[in-house]
Amino acid sequence: MSKTISPLAPKSYPALPAIEGVRIATAEAGIRYKNRTDVLYVSLARDTAVAGVFTRSKCPSAPVDWCRKNLGKNGARALVVNSGNANAFTGKKGIEAVKLTADFAAKAAGCRASQVFIASTGVIGEPLDAARFKGVLESCEKKAKPLAWVDAAKAIMTTDTFPKVATRTANIGGIPVTINGVAKGAGMIAPDMATMLSFIFTDAPIAAPVLQALLKKGADKSFNCVTIDSDTSTSDTLLFFATGAAAKRGAPAITLPSDRRLKEFRQELEGLLSDLAQQVARDGEGARKFVTVKITGAKGAISAKRIAMAVANSPLVKTAVAGEDANWGRVVMAVGKAGEPADRDKLAIWFGDIRVAAKGARDPAYDEAKTTAYMRGSDIIIRVDLGLGRGEATVWTCDLTKEYVEINGDYRS
Amino acid sequence: MSKTISPLAPKSYPALPAIEGVRIATAEAGIRYKNRTDVLYVSLARDTAVAGVFTRSKCPSAPVDWCRKNLGKNGARALVVNSGNANAFTGKKGIEAVKLTADFAAKAAGCRASQVFIASTGVIGEPLDAARFKGVLESCEKKAKPLAWVDAAKAIMTTDTFPKVATRTANIGGIPVTINGVAKGAGMIAPDMATMLSFIFTDAPIAAPVLQALLKKGADKSFNCVTIDSDTSTSDTLLFFATGAAAKRGAPAITLPSDRRLKEFRQELEGLLSDLAQQVARDGEGARKFVTVKITGAKGAISAKRIAMAVANSPLVKTAVAGEDANWGRVVMAVGKAGEPADRDKLAIWFGDIRVAAKGARDPAYDEAKTTAYMRGSDIIIRVDLGLGRGEATVWTCDLTKEYVEINGDYRS
Repeated sequence: MSKTISPLAPKSYPALPAIEGVRIATAEAGIRYKNRTDVLYVSLARDTAVAGVFTRSKCPSAPVDWCRKNLGKNGARALVVNSGNANAFTGKKGIEAVKLTADFAAKAAGCRASQVFIASTGVIGEPLDAARFKGVLESCEKKAKPLAWVDAAKAIMTTDTFPKVATRTANIGGIPVTINGVAKGAGMIAPDMATMLSFIFTDAPIAAPVLQALLKKGADKSFNCVTIDSDTSTSDTLLFFATGAAAKRGAPAITLPSDRRLKEFRQELEGLLSDLAQQVARDGEGARKFVTVKITGAKGAISAKRIAMAVANSPLVKTAVAGEDANWGRVVMAVGKAGEPADRDKLAIWFGDIRVAAKGARDPAYDEAKTTAYMRGSDIIIRVDLGLGRGEATVWTCDLTKEYVEINGDYRS
Repeated sequence: MSKTISPLAPKSYPALPAIEGVRIATAEAGIRYKNRTDVLYVSLARDTAVAGVFTRSKCPSAPVDWCRKNLGKNGARALVVNSGNANAFTGKKGIEAVKLTADFAAKAAGCRASQVFIASTGVIGEPLDAARFKGVLESCEKKAKPLAWVDAAKAIMTTDTFPKVATRTANIGGIPVTINGVAKGAGMIAPDMATMLSFIFTDAPIAAPVLQALLKKGADKSFNCVTIDSDTSTSDTLLFFATGAAAKRGAPAITLPSDRRLKEFRQELEGLLSDLAQQVARDGEGARKFVTVKITGAKGAISAKRIAMAVANSPLVKTAVAGEDANWGRVVMAVGKAGEPADRDKLAIWFGDIRVAAKGARDPAYDEAKTTAYMRGSDIIIRVDLGLGRGEATVWTCDLTKEYVEINGDYRS
């Protein structure tokens, strides 16, 4: 955890209500950090459905392999997350460490090891000493409480400067259900330590395949639209748990993704995921500005997304934003390098509401002073219209500052 | 031009000999810089063949459009390059500025406008006032001399900290011919100003289509293997001029790319292009370390190149190198995110000759002190063997330092 809190941190945190069937505990296992919690344990009611979306890395961590293997089996009864060590690229020892962690948690929760979901974030390549969890998880099971959401968000932080939580309510068949989520980021990745992790919980009675469909679609519109530095972690994990406890209050069981009663739930879920994803960008390593890149008029949605990512990942665009420089030439450059259909002479670019370029040249009404004033704000919107079609995309990122280099450079010499 | 010279600059420059048919002049046109040359004019003998390779940007500059249009027409008689303004995203005015420049040069050289090749590097989006070249190019034609190679390299610099020149000799049919080259970089891109430019000259009598084939292949193995920050300029231009003057000394005319007498020339050309490309990486913005990324054992050559670029473009790998941190976990991450075939449990990674990881885990013989000592050097080689096939690739880059952010951030506030 960094000592300096991001200037883009939220001014206050929402109070997250309890979700029936979810109990939370955190602990200090001393894996890497001293004097802070580094283990999150979540106890889940019987018959909790689970869905997951994971890193696309070809070198995923041992916990990611474990979660993938156990999705679609027999639900979830416990979640164990540690910070400080990613248990990635740890070979056989890494697989054994995951198995041992699951065994400890299974014993504590009274379930099968395959019902334990695990995520790890931290250093890559260091063996994780799972023996440290012995006793810790049992004690967590005993002390777990329904309202420790901010504690949960804190225990999984690495270089994050603030805990990330969000909550929503939705009606399903006239019955209100709750969705709570926590996340950590600090980048898609972090200094020695890595990973975007997020865990979402609801009491809605939604079957696992439906939950998976909702999560997949929601992730594409939220976490998959965030980039800090174009580097993808070995360990990115987004899990969604549904205890189904709202069924007792009359909420209908949802077994089909096409069920119309999901309409509001889907909206609220997507809002919550976007909220958490934007918090991740607001806490990007060294971030001083939150940047929204909106592409319109592209040939199609995929093309728009690729162009948006090319702009959002461009070190030159990001350093210009850090420097409060309305350098739209770099936006042109980034659009040009994306490899997607673009016609220089149809391009238009805005910073906020100020159109700076149109029809292949600087806007005749361009006003340097007005644009520079806009760039001094902490929330910057860069919009590009390609003038070719109806493809649109929005992605979120942050600026690239000297602090990013400092955090990740660890100038040892 | 920066005042601090890159610590990776060559200790001395080679003396470039004259190439018959090539005369060089530089001038101060005051386009953006004060008290330095910003125009390069090269006069070329009649019947000079020309080949070119350009940026893949979908938003290319007006000079790039011009050069593309005139390749394969009637050879080259003059080259005009300016620094300080890229004449990119300048609309109709940009096209007019190129035409006017070509007209001035054609008048000076006594040739057609289509025989004038033009490149511009500098700010994007600012109209280029080509009227400033009036008189300047005629005076250049008059004073042009055969040996002003370093002056040529200096006139085209933007944020480069040293001029980049190289020379080679090769025999064609028993007759020695010369190849000289100049380049500028400072990144694929530079602060407000942009662009990788390189111009190669030879007296060998090589027909334009053969020259084009040689250049294309050579560029793929050299300039296309350099990345500073993954940002591609709107203006990248590599031009190759062959005056053919060596024919008078008995060198045979080469009209087919398959001509075996090209063997040595091809080797020397590729060596020269690699030399210049590596100089560009050594002068990357803020660079303190020169990094070679070698991939072996990939499924194929394209796959190897993509993985090499993923490693070389990773901000986390580059900041780790800046911090002299042997953080091979980030190399694993970069391999994993490349989207190419990779098997975590077959990967091996070396820093220099030190194997740090093998078979999906840290090397049992890993020695932190030894590896850290290696990272203190100024030339770092990162090698990854995928263990899957015979695909290989090598790319060059530099580290990512706070100076990069400073140079490009232009903290105005």
